[in-house]
Amino acid sequence: MDPIYALPTLQAFTLEIFKKIGCPEPQAQLATEVLLQADLRGIDSHGIARLSGYVRLWEAARVNPTPDIKIVHETPSTAVVDGDSGLGLVVAPKAMAIAIEKARIAGTGWVSVRNSNHFGIAGYHAMMALEHDMIGMAMTNASPLVAPTYSVERLLGTNPIAVAVPALTQPPFVADFATTTAANGKLEILQRKNALAPVGWIQTKDGQPSTDPNETKSGGALIPLGSDREHGSHKGFCLGAWVDIFSAVLSGANYGPWVPPFVAFLQPPADPVGKGIGHFFGAMRVDAFRPAQEFKEHMDNWINRFRSAKTVEGQERLIIPGDPEREISALRREQGIPLNPKVVEDLQALGKKFEIEF
Amino acid sequence: MDPIYALPTLQAFTLEIFKKIGCPEPQAQLATEVLLQADLRGIDSHGIARLSGYVRLWEAARVNPTPDIKIVHETPSTAVVDGDSGLGLVVAPKAMAIAIEKARIAGTGWVSVRNSNHFGIAGYHAMMALEHDMIGMAMTNASPLVAPTYSVERLLGTNPIAVAVPALTQPPFVADFATTTAANGKLEILQRKNALAPVGWIQTKDGQPSTDPNETKSGGALIPLGSDREHGSHKGFCLGAWVDIFSAVLSGANYGPWVPPFVAFLQPPADPVGKGIGHFFGAMRVDAFRPAQEFKEHMDNWINRFRSAKTVEGQERLIIPGDPEREISALRREQGIPLNPKVVEDLQALGKKFEIEF
Repeated sequence: MDPIYALPTLQAFTLEIFKKIGCPEPQAQLATEVLLQADLRGIDSHGIARLSGYVRLWEAARVNPTPDIKIVHETPSTAVVDGDSGLGLVVAPKAMAIAIEKARIAGTGWVSVRNSNHFGIAGYHAMMALEHDMIGMAMTNASPLVAPTYSVERLLGTNPIAVAVPALTQPPFVADFATTTAANGKLEILQRKNALAPVGWIQTKDGQPSTDPNETKSGGALIPLGSDREHGSHKGFCLGAWVDIFSAVLSGANYGPWVPPFVAFLQPPADPVGKGIGHFFGAMRVDAFRPAQEFKEHMDNWINRFRSAKTVEGQERLIIPGDPEREISALRREQGIPLNPKVVEDLQALGKKFEIEF
Repeated sequence: MDPIYALPTLQAFTLEIFKKIGCPEPQAQLATEVLLQADLRGIDSHGIARLSGYVRLWEAARVNPTPDIKIVHETPSTAVVDGDSGLGLVVAPKAMAIAIEKARIAGTGWVSVRNSNHFGIAGYHAMMALEHDMIGMAMTNASPLVAPTYSVERLLGTNPIAVAVPALTQPPFVADFATTTAANGKLEILQRKNALAPVGWIQTKDGQPSTDPNETKSGGALIPLGSDREHGSHKGFCLGAWVDIFSAVLSGANYGPWVPPFVAFLQPPADPVGKGIGHFFGAMRVDAFRPAQEFKEHMDNWINRFRSAKTVEGQERLIIPGDPEREISALRREQGIPLNPKVVEDLQALGKKFEIEF
């Protein structure tokens, strides 16, 4: 059994760490809120497990704790934001807030971001739109770990997409997924368990199928959603490419194999094609299309119809996107968040460095 | 060897048919142009092979040849368009033109469409944006043939997404894909050849894996991109659901299992939740984000880098989305379009009905 920590305990520690690296109080609070939503929602790979990684990026002078986040170009429905090397955890919600503000006036708002870093879970940012009766979207590119169909080179990140849609009495529809067969976090879990991966998740450095979750440490790659050409991996490649182009070619961030690595022990490419990593956010006012009440009633109907579908034997129900994360979130708020012992060790070392008890 | 027809021959015949069912000349021309782009681009299932299907929908009074296509609601960057039961082949380009016009002023334009029919290939509409230095997007829902993960019921169409991005000296990036493991057109090809499908494309009416391409005729279903839960079919479901919501819940069209069938011999559901089928279009001015020249130079760099990637043994190059369709299109413009003998028979019968020689 992994040790369990109450959310406020993890929040207090994370907040102090972000303050120690020089984040002003409001930004440290925002970064803490975004980061820990990953742990709450069960996406453990993107939460507090990454805290020491962010600190190492700061130590390598690749994160600016006091960024001047600003709009560098805009139209009524668009903006490009420069994150000034700030934490993605801070840059992203500010950019999403701009998209929401644009949508209030123009019906929709679309913000492409350069010069940022890892932004936590895409779903957090997309969900910011919900309370405004807007549909939210969030994407980001990431360090190259994925080989497109037929490639042995790693040219794309796991480039996730999130789409959040409000309903009326039903909880919102929240899709949030890596555009690969399996997210990198799933490999990390297998690595810790010394377990094998299913065929179709990973390839070797020569492009051969592999079940070794450590393959990416020796030049192997994750595979786009679809697993192989016959099962549509070229479509998964399209998705990852789309995210890369919207996040980075539109904004002036690094794209494809030029995206700087999250881990501080790897140097960013010496020949950057842009600044930092890129994100893309969208907000669409529901009532820019039809009355919000009407839309949300139909979303309720959509969700109810799908959730009550007849299922295959052995499965109780069809899972609506967002259901599992919402359920685990409710559970963890009440019962606490389990942390892998290796993560605990890592956080204790981090605490020691900054003289904060974990 | 299938018989081969010159593009102008097929165009002339198609134009006459659309005029015979009452389309005014300009609309008949537009419908012909859109429909035959599918044949040119090698997406044979969506081209002239469907012509008699459109005619049967008209015979069933489910297609209006003289629709009053109009905007029913709008904001600076959005519109909802009612297609008045017109041919999707006509409604869709008109809606995309509205998205482009909105983008000219507001930076981006987003149009959700209700009360339409099958719109041909999504890529055609997305590509309309390219000559304006805009990124184009197009999606549509379709008759339910797809069972979401764990469902035995068919609740979604193959719901394609197209994204077209301009480059400078390189041809554009054009992704256009069904959000299932395999498009329905691929099944039709296997049906004609009496060949089996790979495991992971299809399930039986009880949700068991199947390789029979005729399975969908007896209650079986296509499977979302990913093939099974372990390989991410829940992500393919997210994509199909996203298309359904943007195309139909936003516009007031039918969604999910309520989408009316394309084939005229099946009746639309007796309890519709909206009007016709739905589409969604987007146009984003590239220079609403950064100077167009700069953007397109970076797209060239993106495309060149990916196209020159080191490939797995036996594959010459990495395929950039849009490459295969562009190549086949050039070939077919020059050498003509091969038609399956069953399609030829069908067109001859159609010609006879309207006293037009095929």
